[in-house]
Amino acid sequence: MTSPTIVTAAMLAIGDELLSGRTKDKNIGHLADMLTMVGIDLREVRIVADDQDAIVEALNALRSRYRHVFTSGGIGPTHDDITADAISKAFGVECIHEPKAMELLAAMYERRGMEFTEARKRMARMPEGATHIPNPVSTAPGFAIENVYVMAGVPQVFQAMLDALLPSLETGTPVLSRTVRSPYGEGDIGAPLTEVQKNHPETSIGSYPRFDGKSFSTDIVIRARDATVLGAAETEVIAMIEAIGRSREKHQP
Amino acid sequence: MTSPTIVTAAMLAIGDELLSGRTKDKNIGHLADMLTMVGIDLREVRIVADDQDAIVEALNALRSRYRHVFTSGGIGPTHDDITADAISKAFGVECIHEPKAMELLAAMYERRGMEFTEARKRMARMPEGATHIPNPVSTAPGFAIENVYVMAGVPQVFQAMLDALLPSLETGTPVLSRTVRSPYGEGDIGAPLTEVQKNHPETSIGSYPRFDGKSFSTDIVIRARDATVLGAAETEVIAMIEAIGRSREKHQP
Repeated sequence: MTSPTIVTAAMLAIGDELLSGRTKDKNIGHLADMLTMVGIDLREVRIVADDQDAIVEALNALRSRYRHVFTSGGIGPTHDDITADAISKAFGVECIHEPKAMELLAAMYERRGMEFTEARKRMARMPEGATHIPNPVSTAPGFAIENVYVMAGVPQVFQAMLDALLPSLETGTPVLSRTVRSPYGEGDIGAPLTEVQKNHPETSIGSYPRFDGKSFSTDIVIRARDATVLGAAETEVIAMIEAIGRSREKHQP
Repeated sequence: MTSPTIVTAAMLAIGDELLSGRTKDKNIGHLADMLTMVGIDLREVRIVADDQDAIVEALNALRSRYRHVFTSGGIGPTHDDITADAISKAFGVECIHEPKAMELLAAMYERRGMEFTEARKRMARMPEGATHIPNPVSTAPGFAIENVYVMAGVPQVFQAMLDALLPSLETGTPVLSRTVRSPYGEGDIGAPLTEVQKNHPETSIGSYPRFDGKSFSTDIVIRARDATVLGAAETEVIAMIEAIGRSREKHQP
């Protein structure tokens, strides 16, 4: 077994609407799924308001700590879209109307016979030195600066930008996982599962209660970066559940 | 117009499964809705792993900054449920098997003819001095210590605990909101909407693009703590949209 490569990441979701409840975030879960698939460990997520100080502080905390930082939201054409300015401030660089983005947007609005308004020109703004993240849905690009990737909040656009971005990023050894369904609640499996976890220190075993309105069952999720390690732990979890079942049968009258 | 009372809050969602994508969080959006309704401003959300250092650091950052801090997850009976320990550590107090919680759980398992296992006893653990947050769904209580409210991750239980908790909390002046649908995209309304925002500094006006797969429209959300202030801004937003419509008719061939 070769030593696994760990690549970490964080997400910063930006928007008053996420904190007021008006919009239910869909990007965090999608990013989590995609990063897990490619072998990037999402370690922390923060949601902050459309507030420059809050964005700058959270971004600087996250970008110094994690290999990759993904942001969502606040890059549209209206006055409450302040992400480009806040990211520029966090990096201490100018926020400019980036020439290539201006060209892309001007051409797109000309094709569609629409005016390239001052508001629309806001969507070409990004920190000086940033590179584009393509937006195949609605043209206005996201942008990357150092280890920070700034994407739209609209889920269709966020997802398209992420698809365009991911192949270019450094990734690590993917975490493999197996889920074993247990008909028993966490209270029944807690003690033996602790033993299984101790016997398999290179795995991370989580247990997730399900509640059907009457009783609890459990999904046991085993995670490891090595298939052999994973398989050994899975075998022991299955044996544990069978043992609980046999012990219950014995106690039937 | 009397001066509004502002009461702030943050949420700390705890769990590896939220960061791996296995579980899509439902508690953040629910908490946001409920807090908005009662007049508590949710200002920040963090999601961290089942990792003691990460929980302690995030909790201490949030509890010093916001009036209320709500946590979800990690209070079940298995080895990966470490929230009670982490919260105790953050406050520098012992994590104990709280006697009243032990009684509640012992009585419940006795009624159900189930063994009160060591694992199940873990659910009675909380920082010394904490008070219960009742759990009408599955008995095992959440707990409150100073301005921190520790609740379950299972959404049905989280919601029931929050319902039990909220009436006891200090709340502020609720934010009122009106949504005006605009058939025009953000690029068309961006400039005039900026003017409306400037004319109504006591409101917060957000614009949220909708994308139907072909074109963008916009929801304009006006928020304020005073109904008169809110109504005046709404009137001007509606007038703005009508003006855009008239200007478009003029340009028709």
